[in-house]
Amino acid sequence: MNKNNTAYLKRLERVWDWMEKEDIALLMLEDTETRRDQNIRWLTGHPNDALLFLTSDRKAILAAWDVNLAKLYACAPVIIASYNDYNRKAITAISVIAKTIGIPAGSRVEIPSVTSYPTFLNFVGELTDYDIICREKGAVAEINKMRAVKDEEEIRITKKAAGVTNEIINLLEKNAQNGKIKTEADAALFIEVESRKRGCEGTSFGTLAAGPDRSYAIHAFPGWTNAPFAVQGLSILDFGVKLNGYCTDVTLTFARDLNAKQEKLVGLVEKAYKLAVPMSRNGTKARDIAASVDAFFKKSRKEMPHGLGHGVGLEEHEYPVIRSSKENEWVLEPGMIFTIEPGLYDPVLGGCRLENDVLVTDADPEILTESRIIWL
Amino acid sequence: MNKNNTAYLKRLERVWDWMEKEDIALLMLEDTETRRDQNIRWLTGHPNDALLFLTSDRKAILAAWDVNLAKLYACAPVIIASYNDYNRKAITAISVIAKTIGIPAGSRVEIPSVTSYPTFLNFVGELTDYDIICREKGAVAEINKMRAVKDEEEIRITKKAAGVTNEIINLLEKNAQNGKIKTEADAALFIEVESRKRGCEGTSFGTLAAGPDRSYAIHAFPGWTNAPFAVQGLSILDFGVKLNGYCTDVTLTFARDLNAKQEKLVGLVEKAYKLAVPMSRNGTKARDIAASVDAFFKKSRKEMPHGLGHGVGLEEHEYPVIRSSKENEWVLEPGMIFTIEPGLYDPVLGGCRLENDVLVTDADPEILTESRIIWL
Repeated sequence: MNKNNTAYLKRLERVWDWMEKEDIALLMLEDTETRRDQNIRWLTGHPNDALLFLTSDRKAILAAWDVNLAKLYACAPVIIASYNDYNRKAITAISVIAKTIGIPAGSRVEIPSVTSYPTFLNFVGELTDYDIICREKGAVAEINKMRAVKDEEEIRITKKAAGVTNEIINLLEKNAQNGKIKTEADAALFIEVESRKRGCEGTSFGTLAAGPDRSYAIHAFPGWTNAPFAVQGLSILDFGVKLNGYCTDVTLTFARDLNAKQEKLVGLVEKAYKLAVPMSRNGTKARDIAASVDAFFKKSRKEMPHGLGHGVGLEEHEYPVIRSSKENEWVLEPGMIFTIEPGLYDPVLGGCRLENDVLVTDADPEILTESRIIWL
Repeated sequence: MNKNNTAYLKRLERVWDWMEKEDIALLMLEDTETRRDQNIRWLTGHPNDALLFLTSDRKAILAAWDVNLAKLYACAPVIIASYNDYNRKAITAISVIAKTIGIPAGSRVEIPSVTSYPTFLNFVGELTDYDIICREKGAVAEINKMRAVKDEEEIRITKKAAGVTNEIINLLEKNAQNGKIKTEADAALFIEVESRKRGCEGTSFGTLAAGPDRSYAIHAFPGWTNAPFAVQGLSILDFGVKLNGYCTDVTLTFARDLNAKQEKLVGLVEKAYKLAVPMSRNGTKARDIAASVDAFFKKSRKEMPHGLGHGVGLEEHEYPVIRSSKENEWVLEPGMIFTIEPGLYDPVLGGCRLENDVLVTDADPEILTESRIIWL
């Protein structure tokens, strides 16, 4: 268990400060099967299936589905309760807790922005004493934004996860070369085995291994099969590991006996990557990096069917957004960790994507992972 | 690809009929990263990442993120569009489609019940010509309910998935006996390999393999590690396979050199299972089955910290609900497939759960999977 109480307490303090500024007396966060929210893990260390209540008098109450798990993982200042004591109902939990700690009538009580409209109506109907706040730019959005800039502890863990990822990348290259990886399943299972051996919780997401017949799909479905992999043509391997909660996300392309058109496709992706990474600096607009790649591909009449990148952390997709859309207002800051992943896909030639995780610093960007085009 | 157009068309007809009755001119369903909805797969065959629009003139328009995937998987009557054409924004898609097909002003347009309150306000603000409907007991709930009773095609596929599951169960038993499965990782990886070999898309969910040190947790976290498995004490293995979209969900308990208290725990779980399965008949209230198990455990002063079961199908957890809570109104019907999974957990003795998938018929219940207590 990773109980760096200082780091968690600092994060909680930031949210309590924000609540004070926003005049929120009670804040509920929810992580359940249909509404995942890693903010609870970020604030307390508890991995999943719980409600978290933060109060204006700076208490943190965790109503966990599995109390034993909470005792192992939750950081010191957190008060642990059982979700079962509230019949596993968020409305029951919030009304009991509000009464117990004596939240005055008329106070502002915030619930997650993802709360459905019908559920919101239920909350308003049941908690008539309070002013129920549910807003797009509310607590969840604010905490998600805080998480875009990693603290020291997070950078330390992510670098450890990146180290494991890099060991696996090197072994994958070796095993593709010596013929030990022949199918998509070989590649995916190898990653499963090697990541757990190295103490990971698992992979960040279902590995996507697509041999030459399927690599033209952005996200192959199913994620992997028994089809040939790393044979003649372009094969894509998109994976990540999760260590102490923190994800990596990389994509390797395996290139074997390419024709001239395929080689050109790979060359364009590599050039786009080399264009984007050095731009990942403090103060740069994320939109500008993605727009540069779009413009570069456009010169060759190519178009990328997905965004250039996204933050990684407790989730495999989080802030900042690295896209060229006009509404993308993200500006890079030291401590941000995100993917740069240009890719091109062609139903005949196959696909090529190159993806690494980049840390913005005060100086040059630090490329944490070592994925690459693997020539066979 | 499994394109049984007749089965899909029948399902679409049921939803169109329901829309007519409810006077809904346009219905949108959404399956995206943060809002999964397998109803789209149930209605069209397309596996993920799309919006589905059903119209009062009985059209089905699928706005897919990956159009190539949609062409492979979507059934014949579906019109395929690209989600990118609407800037990957649901509001843009719905307003363009409503205009294009000429939905008259003032019509009722339904959006998913999980739509967040802030997003609902955006829809209402932008689609001023229409009456935007977002309700708990609306289209999504209705389709979820329809899915609780499987049709012939679904039963056929689920039986195939159960067959694969049973082959794997037999091999797991053999390999635990002959010492080839020594760790949680051995068990979990064996399932990954064997399920894909047999044509599965993957596992239904992340396998939970918990050796004697961790089996007291309802859902071990992480799902599996390199810890010893099937050694002295109680080990739990909860897994399922997904074949052509359909899930199984079983739990085996491996018992080795138990003490008297552990044997008693296992005996209670087995008795609860044998009590519950024969009750799984047409017309029985699901609540009554779960209540019988609760009462049985209570006689031995034991309590089960989770529900007795849940439907399985395109999702690993779906309707019907097999719980003892008062608000559970589900009554069993032929074609329902659900788990029966009594379990008891003790921090000292470890945990025991026995879970199989049961099909309700006109006569006796059919136990599709063959999980069991494996004595070593």
